[in-house]
Amino acid sequence: MSLWSRADGRAIDEMRPVTIQRHFLEEGEGSVLVKFGKTTVLCVASFTEGVPRWRKDSGLGWVTGEYAMLPRATSDRSSRESVRGKVGGRTHEISRLVGRSLRAAVNMQALGDNTIVLDCDVLQADGGTRTASITGAFVALADAVNWAVAKGIMKPAPILTDSISAVSAGIVDGHAVLDLPYEEDSRADTDMNVVGTGSGKFIEIQGTAEHEPFSRDELGTILDLASIGNAQLAKIQREALLGENAIDARIIGGAW
Amino acid sequence: MSLWSRADGRAIDEMRPVTIQRHFLEEGEGSVLVKFGKTTVLCVASFTEGVPRWRKDSGLGWVTGEYAMLPRATSDRSSRESVRGKVGGRTHEISRLVGRSLRAAVNMQALGDNTIVLDCDVLQADGGTRTASITGAFVALADAVNWAVAKGIMKPAPILTDSISAVSAGIVDGHAVLDLPYEEDSRADTDMNVVGTGSGKFIEIQGTAEHEPFSRDELGTILDLASIGNAQLAKIQREALLGENAIDARIIGGAW
Amino acid sequence: MSLWSRADGRAIDEMRPVTIQRHFLEEGEGSVLVKFGKTTVLCVASFTEGVPRWRKDSGLGWVTGEYAMLPRATSDRSSRESVRGKVGGRTHEISRLVGRSLRAAVNMQALGDNTIVLDCDVLQADGGTRTASITGAFVALADAVNWAVAKGIMKPAPILTDSISAVSAGIVDGHAVLDLPYEEDSRADTDMNVVGTGSGKFIEIQGTAEHEPFSRDELGTILDLASIGNAQLAKIQREALLGENAIDARIIGGAW
Amino acid sequence: MSLWSRADGRAIDEMRPVTIQRHFLEEGEGSVLVKFGKTTVLCVASFTEGVPRWRKDSGLGWVTGEYAMLPRATSDRSSRESVRGKVGGRTHEISRLVGRSLRAAVNMQALGDNTIVLDCDVLQADGGTRTASITGAFVALADAVNWAVAKGIMKPAPILTDSISAVSAGIVDGHAVLDLPYEEDSRADTDMNVVGTGSGKFIEIQGTAEHEPFSRDELGTILDLASIGNAQLAKIQREALLGENAIDARIIGGAW
Amino acid sequence: MSLWSRADGRAIDEMRPVTIQRHFLEEGEGSVLVKFGKTTVLCVASFTEGVPRWRKDSGLGWVTGEYAMLPRATSDRSSRESVRGKVGGRTHEISRLVGRSLRAAVNMQALGDNTIVLDCDVLQADGGTRTASITGAFVALADAVNWAVAKGIMKPAPILTDSISAVSAGIVDGHAVLDLPYEEDSRADTDMNVVGTGSGKFIEIQGTAEHEPFSRDELGTILDLASIGNAQLAKIQREALLGENAIDARIIGGAW
Amino acid sequence: MSLWSRADGRAIDEMRPVTIQRHFLEEGEGSVLVKFGKTTVLCVASFTEGVPRWRKDSGLGWVTGEYAMLPRATSDRSSRESVRGKVGGRTHEISRLVGRSLRAAVNMQALGDNTIVLDCDVLQADGGTRTASITGAFVALADAVNWAVAKGIMKPAPILTDSISAVSAGIVDGHAVLDLPYEEDSRADTDMNVVGTGSGKFIEIQGTAEHEPFSRDELGTILDLASIGNAQLAKIQREALLGENAIDARIIGGAW
Repeated sequence: MSLWSRADGRAIDEMRPVTIQRHFLEEGEGSVLVKFGKTTVLCVASFTEGVPRWRKDSGLGWVTGEYAMLPRATSDRSSRESVRGKVGGRTHEISRLVGRSLRAAVNMQALGDNTIVLDCDVLQADGGTRTASITGAFVALADAVNWAVAKGIMKPAPILTDSISAVSAGIVDGHAVLDLPYEEDSRADTDMNVVGTGSGKFIEIQGTAEHEPFSRDELGTILDLASIGNAQLAKIQREALLGENAIDARIIGGAW
Repeated sequence: MSLWSRADGRAIDEMRPVTIQRHFLEEGEGSVLVKFGKTTVLCVASFTEGVPRWRKDSGLGWVTGEYAMLPRATSDRSSRESVRGKVGGRTHEISRLVGRSLRAAVNMQALGDNTIVLDCDVLQADGGTRTASITGAFVALADAVNWAVAKGIMKPAPILTDSISAVSAGIVDGHAVLDLPYEEDSRADTDMNVVGTGSGKFIEIQGTAEHEPFSRDELGTILDLASIGNAQLAKIQREALLGENAIDARIIGGAW
Repeated sequence: MSLWSRADGRAIDEMRPVTIQRHFLEEGEGSVLVKFGKTTVLCVASFTEGVPRWRKDSGLGWVTGEYAMLPRATSDRSSRESVRGKVGGRTHEISRLVGRSLRAAVNMQALGDNTIVLDCDVLQADGGTRTASITGAFVALADAVNWAVAKGIMKPAPILTDSISAVSAGIVDGHAVLDLPYEEDSRADTDMNVVGTGSGKFIEIQGTAEHEPFSRDELGTILDLASIGNAQLAKIQREALLGENAIDARIIGGAW
Repeated sequence: MSLWSRADGRAIDEMRPVTIQRHFLEEGEGSVLVKFGKTTVLCVASFTEGVPRWRKDSGLGWVTGEYAMLPRATSDRSSRESVRGKVGGRTHEISRLVGRSLRAAVNMQALGDNTIVLDCDVLQADGGTRTASITGAFVALADAVNWAVAKGIMKPAPILTDSISAVSAGIVDGHAVLDLPYEEDSRADTDMNVVGTGSGKFIEIQGTAEHEPFSRDELGTILDLASIGNAQLAKIQREALLGENAIDARIIGGAW
Repeated sequence: MSLWSRADGRAIDEMRPVTIQRHFLEEGEGSVLVKFGKTTVLCVASFTEGVPRWRKDSGLGWVTGEYAMLPRATSDRSSRESVRGKVGGRTHEISRLVGRSLRAAVNMQALGDNTIVLDCDVLQADGGTRTASITGAFVALADAVNWAVAKGIMKPAPILTDSISAVSAGIVDGHAVLDLPYEEDSRADTDMNVVGTGSGKFIEIQGTAEHEPFSRDELGTILDLASIGNAQLAKIQREALLGENAIDARIIGGAW
Repeated sequence: MSLWSRADGRAIDEMRPVTIQRHFLEEGEGSVLVKFGKTTVLCVASFTEGVPRWRKDSGLGWVTGEYAMLPRATSDRSSRESVRGKVGGRTHEISRLVGRSLRAAVNMQALGDNTIVLDCDVLQADGGTRTASITGAFVALADAVNWAVAKGIMKPAPILTDSISAVSAGIVDGHAVLDLPYEEDSRADTDMNVVGTGSGKFIEIQGTAEHEPFSRDELGTILDLASIGNAQLAKIQREALLGENAIDARIIGGAW
C-alpha cells in the first residue's frame, strides 16, 4: 500500500486546486466561475421579486437551482438536451440537489417575497461537477443577497444561516481519497458526495457503492475526508466573499 | 421526551407491517406486491434475452429499473406524466436509484447476455415508496433469475451476490425514528434512505437535512435504525422467497 | 361446426369469470379492481369540487376518463408512454371512449359544480381491457357519487341515470362468440365492443371487420350476444354495489 | 312532425353534393380533392417500395393513413398540433380509423413488399370530415395502385378486393337523417359513422349516444340510411375512377 | 454562354406563371390559393379581436404568420411535424419571415386591438414556397382587413401602408436568374429571397452563397432581377384585389 | 445631425472592442472565447471521424453549428429550452445560419470522411450574438482542422478556402452604423447581418426593415460599413491564429 499513489500526485486528503472568480460576467446578481482542477462551472444567480404561484402569500422566499452541461464539456460531445427535447435523469437529479442544498442555508422568512435562481452551467467536466456547482452557487447566492441588501430590497440580517459547500470522497483501489477527478470517479468502488455547512454539519449525504458494498467503517473514513474538504472550501468561499469587493458580512449568520 | 409517541403508536425502531406477495399477477417473470403499511407497490420483473446496444459484446448482463406512481396513489390526484409529455425529476431520480441499487447485487458476468427490467408502480403512497420499491423489486428480480435458471437459460450459480433492501430513517420532532410514513416524512428535520445488503453492508445512503443540518452523531443514530430495519426486511424477503414456491437457493450468494 | 369449441371451453354466449372488488385501496373516492378472466384493471374515481375552465358557470358537472397499461401488462414488456414522451393513439382512443361512455349515465345538472375523473390502469391484459375498464369504472363512479352524497356535497337524487357496462363480441373461426380473450381477439374476423345500459339500450357500438367485411345478419347475432353479456355485467355490478358496504340506491335511477 | 325539415332543405336520406376531383395536384401517386358539401379534404396517396421494419419478410404490403386539419378549417382557428408538440386524441383516433378501413379492402399479399400512405388533410370542415376522408382516400389509393401497375411494379390483379366508402347517419330532433353537417352533428342524440364496401357489407360501425341511449330499432333505421349513402358514394367513386383517365378496372375485385 | 437556356425555357428575368385565387374557401376572413408555377400555397387569414397578452394595453394590433408543408408537397413524402412532436428549424425560420414581412406593411395603431394570423400551408412545393407564401398572404391579409372594415370593426383608413410581395433570384450556372424552381434552386451558387414593397423599397433581403461567395456586383444584378419580379407581383396582387369582389382601395396606402 | 452621437461614443464605422481567446478550455479540438464588447460567446469545435448517415459514401465531410444562450445571458433570465422541451425559432434560425456560413469556407472533399460540430454558447448577450458566434466559430474551426492535420488525420492542404467573419450594420435614428449593441439593435429601423470572407466577398446577407422599408442607396451604405467591419475581423482572426500557438497556415487558402 505504501507504493500506491494518485495519478495526479495528490495526497489522499488533498483537494485539487480550487479557484472562485466572482463577477465573472456583468449580467446576473451573482456571477461566479468556479474551478475544481479542470472542472469549470459558471454559477449565475438571478434575483427576482415575487415567488412562484404555489408559494404565494406564505411570507416565504424561494431558492432553486438548474444544472446543465455544455455539449463539449467532456471529452466526447453529447447532444443538447434542448435538441433531444427533454432533460435527462442525471440533469434532473443534480438540479434538484443544488436547489435543495442551497435552500438549507436560507432563512426563507428573511428572504421574504423574493426568488433566487442559481444556474450552474458546466463549461468543462472532470469529475465533481455537482460539488463544484454547489460550492460556486453558494458564492453567487451570497452575492445576489448582498446585491439586494445594497439595493435596500432586504435588510442586512443573516438571510443566509451558514455557508454551504460540497465535495466528493470515495474509495479507489481500496484507498479512501478526497475530491475525485473523472479518472478516479469512473473506477471508484464507492463514491460519496457530501454537502456540508461552514460550521461542520451535514446538509446532504449521497453515497453509492458502485462496485462493492461498503461498511460502516469505510463510511466513517470517507466522511472524515469530506469534512476536511468542506472545511477548506468554506475557507476559500470566505476569502472570496470577504476579499476584493467584500460583501456585507452581516448577511451570513452562524460562526461564519 | 418520555411523553412523545408516534402518531401510529409504533416504537421508534419498529417497521410498519410489511407484506410481500409473490406471483401477484401471471404476467412477468417476477410479479410482487409489496406493502409497507399503506404504501403499496407492484414490482414486476421482465426478463429478456440480449442486452442494450451500448452493452453488446461485453459478456455482461444488464439490470435496470423504472418507477412511477399511478395518478391517484396519493390523497390528491396528480396528472399523468405521459399526458404531461415528460418524466418528472423525482421519478427520474428514483428510477435511477432502483436500478443502481439492484445492479449492486448482480453478478453481471453470471447474468450473461440477458437483461432484466424492474417496473415499480406505486398503487398507493404513504411515505417510503422508494424503499418499498427496492425491497419488492429485489424479490421480483430473484424470481426472474429463478425462472431463467429453471428454464435452463442460466446455470444455478449465485447470480445475485446478496439480498438488497431499503428503508428510511430520520429525525422527527427531535426523535430518530425508523420507516417514516408520509405524516412523519413531510415534517422530518432529516430524512435518510438507506439501501443495504442482507449481510449488513451499505449500497446507497441518501440523507437530506430538510430543515436542520445534522451532526455526525445524529447520522450514526439514523444509520443504526436503518440497519435494524434492513435486517428485518432481509428476513422477510428470505421467508417470502424460500416459503411457498421456493426459489432455488443457490442463485443468491453470500451469507444469505 | 359441432366439433368446434373455444380454447378455454366456454359456451359461445358465456362470459369469463368476472369479479368486482370495491375498496381495493384506501385512496380514491372509488377504488375498484375488476377482472374479466385474467384481464385485471384498477379503476379509481377521484372526486373534486369545481369543473374545468371551459365548463365554468354552466351549472353542469364533468366526468372524464384516463386509460393506461402498465408496461408489463402483456406478455412482452412495452416501453412507458411517459418515457416515450407521448400518449399513443390507442391509449387516447380508449381514454376518450371511457369518458364518453360514463358521461352518458350522468345527470350533469344533478352532479353540479363537481368533477369526477376515472383512472383505469390495466395491471394485466388478456383481451377486453376497454370493456373491463368501463364496467369497473362505473362501479368506482357510483362509489364516488355515493361518497359525495354521504358527505352532504350532493343530495341523494338519481345522479346516475342508469348503470353502464361494456363487453366485446365477435366472429372467430366463423362463430359468433361473447367476451373475447386475447387469443380469440387477435384472430377474430370481426370484433365489436358494445357499451350498454342496465335497461338494455346502447351507449356506444364499435365494430370492426378485422379480416372480412360483415353483413347485417352477422351484426345482429353479435349484438344479441353483447346484450346477453351486458345484462350479466349489470347484475354483477348491482350485486357489488348493493352487497357489503351498500351504496345509497337512490343515486342510480331507472329500472336499476 | 310533418312540419319538420332539415336546415339545408335535404330529404332525410339525401347526401350533400359530393364531388371527387382526381389529379388535383401533380405530386402524389394519387391526389384527390373530395367534397361533401362544404367539407373539403385533400387525400394524397404516397407509394413507396418496402414495408415498415416490423412487417419485413412477411411477404405482405402495408397501408396506413394520417388525418389532420388545417388550423382554419373551422370557423374558429385552432392552434397547430405541430406547434403544440403533440397529436391530439381525436386526430389519432381518426388516423387509425382511416388506415384500418382502407386496409380492409387491400389484398396485402398482392400488394407485396410495398407501402401506401394516405394523407387526409382537411382544408375545410363542416361535419363528416372522417367519412369524406375515407371516401376520398379510397380513390387516391386506387390511383396509387393503378400507377404501380402501370409502372410494372405490380401485376394487374384485384389488389383491392372491393371499394370502400363511409358516411354518417344519426338522430336529430328525433328524426333519423343521413350525412350530418356540423349544424346537425353538434346537436344529434345519436351519431353513427359507417364504413361500407361497394358490395354492401360493413367494415366499421361506430355509433355513439351523444345525449340519449339508443334502441335496437333506432340502430336499424340508422344503418338503413347509411347503406343508402354508401351505395351512392360507391357509384360516385366508380364514375370518378372509370371516367376521364380511367384506371385499369382489373385492380379492383368483387362485384365492383 | 449564348447557348445556355433555362430548363423551362423562361427568360432570365421572367417569372413563372403566377395566379392568385381569392375566396378559395369559405372559412377564413381571407382565403387565397397562390401559384408560382407548380408551387401551390393556401394562405388563410384569421381575424380575431384582441391581441396577445404581452401586447395588451399598447393600443397596437398584431400580425403573425405560420408556415407549414403538407407531407406530400414534395416528390418524397416527409413525416408530419405534429407526429415528430416538434417544428423543424426551416419551418420556424420561414414562419418568422412571413410574420415579420407582413408586419412591415401594417399600421399597427390603425389595426387597433385586433390580431390577424396568416396560415400558409404549402400544398405543392417546387421552389419559392416562402416567396409565394408572402405574396399570397398579403392578399389574404388585405381581404381580412377589408372584411373588418366592411363589418365596421375598423375605419376605412390605410391600415396597410403598402403592398408586400417576395421573389427569389440567384445565380445558376453563372447566370443570374429570377424566380428559381426547385431544379434551379438546388444547384444555385447563390440564392436570394427579396421581400419588397409595391413602391419598390426593400423589407427583407436574405442572400446565401450556397457554393461560391458572391461579389458586390453579383449582388447588384440579383437585386435588379428581384425588383423586376416584385414589380410584376405587385401588379398581379393589385389586379386580384381590385378585380372581381374588389376591396375598398382606401385600406392600402402609398402609391398603391 | 452633427450633434448626434452613439451612446457608447463610437464612430459610426467603429467596431466595439473585439477579443478572441483561443484554447479557453482544454476540451474541444478548438475552444475560443470571443467578445464583441460585452457580448461573450464560447465557441467549441468538436472533430469526429465519420459523417452523418445521409452523407455516407459521398467522399465529403460535414460541418454544422449549434447556437444557444445560457439562461442569464441577458438582463432578464429566460427559461432553458431543455426545460421547455423544445428549441425556439430564433435558436433554430441562428444555428442554421452558423452552420451554413462556415460550410461556405470548407473544402468538403479535403475534409474527407470527417465531421466538425461548432457549438456557440452565448454566456453574455449585448447584441450581435450571431455575428460574434460566426466570427469565433471560424477560429475554433481552424484550430480543429489544424489539430487534425497535426494528428496526421488530414494532409496540410487548404481545407478552409478562406476566412469567414460576420458583423451587423444598420440604420439607427437615421444614421448608418456598424456593429450594433442591444441598445441600438432594439430600436434600429433596419438591421443587417453580413457574413463575409477574408477576401471581401459575401457569404450571407440578412437585412430586415424593422420599422421602415429601406432603399437601394441605404442598402449600399450599410454594406459599405459591414465590409469595413469584416475586414477588421479578418485581421483580428488572422492575428489570433498566427500569433501564439500559431496554426499551420497552409490549411487556409486564398489571399488569407
